[in-house]
Amino acid sequence: MWGIGLQRRSGISMARQLYRALRDRMTQGGLKPGEALPSTREMARQLGISRNTACEAYAMLADEGFIHSSPGAPTRVAAGLVLEGERHPAQMEQIKPAIRSYAADFRTGRPDLRRFPFHQWRLLIGKGAEELPPEQWDYAGPEGLPALREEIAQWLMRSRGLEERPQDIFITAGSTQALHLLAGLPELKAGEIIVEDPCHTGMLGAWQAMGFAARPVPADGSGLQTGLLEGMDASNARAVYVTPSHQFPLGGILPAARRAELIRFAGKNGLFIIEDDYDSEFRYAGAPVAPLRSMDGEHVAYVGTFSKSLFPALRIGFAVLPAALQAHWAANRRVADVQNPPFGQAALAEFLRTRKFDRHVRLMRRLYGQRREALLQALEDVFGSACIPLGDAAGLHVALRFPGMRFDGEFSRQARVQGIRVTPAEFYCIKKGEHADKLIVGFGHLEPDAIRSAVVYFSDFIRRNAL
Amino acid sequence: MWGIGLQRRSGISMARQLYRALRDRMTQGGLKPGEALPSTREMARQLGISRNTACEAYAMLADEGFIHSSPGAPTRVAAGLVLEGERHPAQMEQIKPAIRSYAADFRTGRPDLRRFPFHQWRLLIGKGAEELPPEQWDYAGPEGLPALREEIAQWLMRSRGLEERPQDIFITAGSTQALHLLAGLPELKAGEIIVEDPCHTGMLGAWQAMGFAARPVPADGSGLQTGLLEGMDASNARAVYVTPSHQFPLGGILPAARRAELIRFAGKNGLFIIEDDYDSEFRYAGAPVAPLRSMDGEHVAYVGTFSKSLFPALRIGFAVLPAALQAHWAANRRVADVQNPPFGQAALAEFLRTRKFDRHVRLMRRLYGQRREALLQALEDVFGSACIPLGDAAGLHVALRFPGMRFDGEFSRQARVQGIRVTPAEFYCIKKGEHADKLIVGFGHLEPDAIRSAVVYFSDFIRRNAL
Repeated sequence: MWGIGLQRRSGISMARQLYRALRDRMTQGGLKPGEALPSTREMARQLGISRNTACEAYAMLADEGFIHSSPGAPTRVAAGLVLEGERHPAQMEQIKPAIRSYAADFRTGRPDLRRFPFHQWRLLIGKGAEELPPEQWDYAGPEGLPALREEIAQWLMRSRGLEERPQDIFITAGSTQALHLLAGLPELKAGEIIVEDPCHTGMLGAWQAMGFAARPVPADGSGLQTGLLEGMDASNARAVYVTPSHQFPLGGILPAARRAELIRFAGKNGLFIIEDDYDSEFRYAGAPVAPLRSMDGEHVAYVGTFSKSLFPALRIGFAVLPAALQAHWAANRRVADVQNPPFGQAALAEFLRTRKFDRHVRLMRRLYGQRREALLQALEDVFGSACIPLGDAAGLHVALRFPGMRFDGEFSRQARVQGIRVTPAEFYCIKKGEHADKLIVGFGHLEPDAIRSAVVYFSDFIRRNAL
Repeated sequence: MWGIGLQRRSGISMARQLYRALRDRMTQGGLKPGEALPSTREMARQLGISRNTACEAYAMLADEGFIHSSPGAPTRVAAGLVLEGERHPAQMEQIKPAIRSYAADFRTGRPDLRRFPFHQWRLLIGKGAEELPPEQWDYAGPEGLPALREEIAQWLMRSRGLEERPQDIFITAGSTQALHLLAGLPELKAGEIIVEDPCHTGMLGAWQAMGFAARPVPADGSGLQTGLLEGMDASNARAVYVTPSHQFPLGGILPAARRAELIRFAGKNGLFIIEDDYDSEFRYAGAPVAPLRSMDGEHVAYVGTFSKSLFPALRIGFAVLPAALQAHWAANRRVADVQNPPFGQAALAEFLRTRKFDRHVRLMRRLYGQRREALLQALEDVFGSACIPLGDAAGLHVALRFPGMRFDGEFSRQARVQGIRVTPAEFYCIKKGEHADKLIVGFGHLEPDAIRSAVVYFSDFIRRNAL
């Protein structure tokens, strides 16, 4: 008579099913306010369930105020329950990621995970969890694991000659989050952020999502053109965001005179410099470049990440902050995501402490250097002087100029259809049209053989389309 | 003659030290633009170092543009290097957390980690890392680990009768981040967020940090007073943020009629409801409350966390999103922190799959229920009718009313000096003065004996200060 169908093996308790059936009738108006429900004994009899089950369902309904019951009186439907419309729970579906493979996959920003020491890392994750002190399972502060901050300080010193105190190093969930959090600081809040053009679209997006407008300054093969800063009205900006050790995407190392010019400009205009050192481990000639921060610790915030040197899903980066930017950092992190989880941090601290990190970076640097050579050689063999590599010998991608050609969104769509993933530099440009003859080519994740055949495949595509 | 002191055992290479010494002289003006440096051979002789070391230092300087050298000509200092001021790198210091203990530590929101199955969890972290498929070490998408989304869907069904598809569940770094990310969605962007008053200051802070102004609506011992919504001008708001299953901090379960009223109000005004189910696992009488979302899946976003049921540093929560809020979620997460790291997600998926989670929650619910009983009994023994507990039997804290008393910031400071950590309800109030006679008392992390002696200690303090 109630039209309630309960299923014994559905994974949902019988009481819960009855509760929901009755609740739905009340919110959909089938049971009216003040209407009396049968007693639990009667309900149990009608549905062929135990009295306990009926009592449990009634108790849930009473607890949530759907029904009122008092001793000796019938249980009645509460008032004001009817909703408009109805909810249709959809079917459970399996989630399957879409995977596609490319004949020439020149995407950027991907380290080669096949060479990652997974086994070592798994042992360290286990060891890290084993040895993690109990207070690190609790809220442990938004600054990050003390051991990791100390190891990063030491690694900055031995790899870049950058002397930093652990307490000035703040762990983040990658360099994207470092920018996201910086963008939330009241000291940087303003209408504009001064950025290189072209620049990393995702990183620019981190600023824009927090309400900043981009104030572009052109970059060339040697990085930000600091000469263009002279006389610029920076009154709506509090910061300059730059990638001086390997300009993204053109690949230049900012020369010392431009560094000094940038620092003087920032000082004169009361600007902070946000220095993103996103892949300076991978420099194939000479030591990593000394960060801007080593020249001006009061105005430069230095942002680094382990996504490229280890693996992207690690989600550990850091910001070395000038004193003036530390006041609101903790409060700002607490309302964003509180802190990093401890396991990856502990494993990374141990990976750094035992110098396994240094060994891994050395190995990958040699490997990536060979791949870069293979790419440049293949390009020269196939394109000759029709293709000119830009920038310095660093990073996991290279910018290429093809004089006389034009690469746009349509080009990249057509290439994709043919199994080629490659990014026109225009994609990263704020002011369009200046870099239409350039492509950004990622190579870090490809073996030399794959690089060579991808270059040949790509040149066929270019010729077929007679660009 | 150069006044350069190099130290052989400093942990920084000799070349790096020489590079820095020369660079500092150039940026501070000691070496002038155009000035010739000695040859590397001469420099090596003067400093008593190997020629290779000097060459390496010169190469670093040349790479970064500090010096120019050409074959057959002396190496010269580049132009435009001088900076104003100077950088004083500070000493490395050990980071030591400040720890203090309290005679009566009634802080809120702390689960009892002493009962946490650390060993099980460590095994799962290891197992999770072991079995993690390679693509999960790469950028794996901002939605979260598929296995975890499926396990959460099943757990929502068996624990709350909430039927959700895994693809509507988005993993976050805790519930704070869920709110932080929701606040960044264009669909919710507006001047105001409608909130309960009092409410959780930290969660309110998550909205405010993203530019929202709080539009408070009074809550009482049964949660949000939905009757006060009638006729309210909600034109500057897109969402209502509520804690219906255990109102923070007053502790009420929102009755069904208020639920329906809230949903009707939201529907009429085109508002989303953000339902924060922060600790509904811990309900000591009856089953967990059915979420608002089960009544209106189109307008309710349901936010949950494992910080209270497992441990705070885990940083895993989730949001179950209506279709209308999913369009910009991924893009918004990508510019915030990209995604959660995989290890905790994999361990949690396994913890849920094997029902170890359910067992742990059952155990803790019994334990916390006993502690709540011990607290209420001790309060009755010591204060009698001078102390009235509010709200329902749920959660890790209880709101207490002391008729005739007034608790403010000064009270809480004085209590702290005496070793008592307790929060006046006023601390959580937007409109001050309505709840001055109430205290919020956390008990989840305290053993019954500690609770009893803390209550006695606290009552002594109250009497001594004759409040």
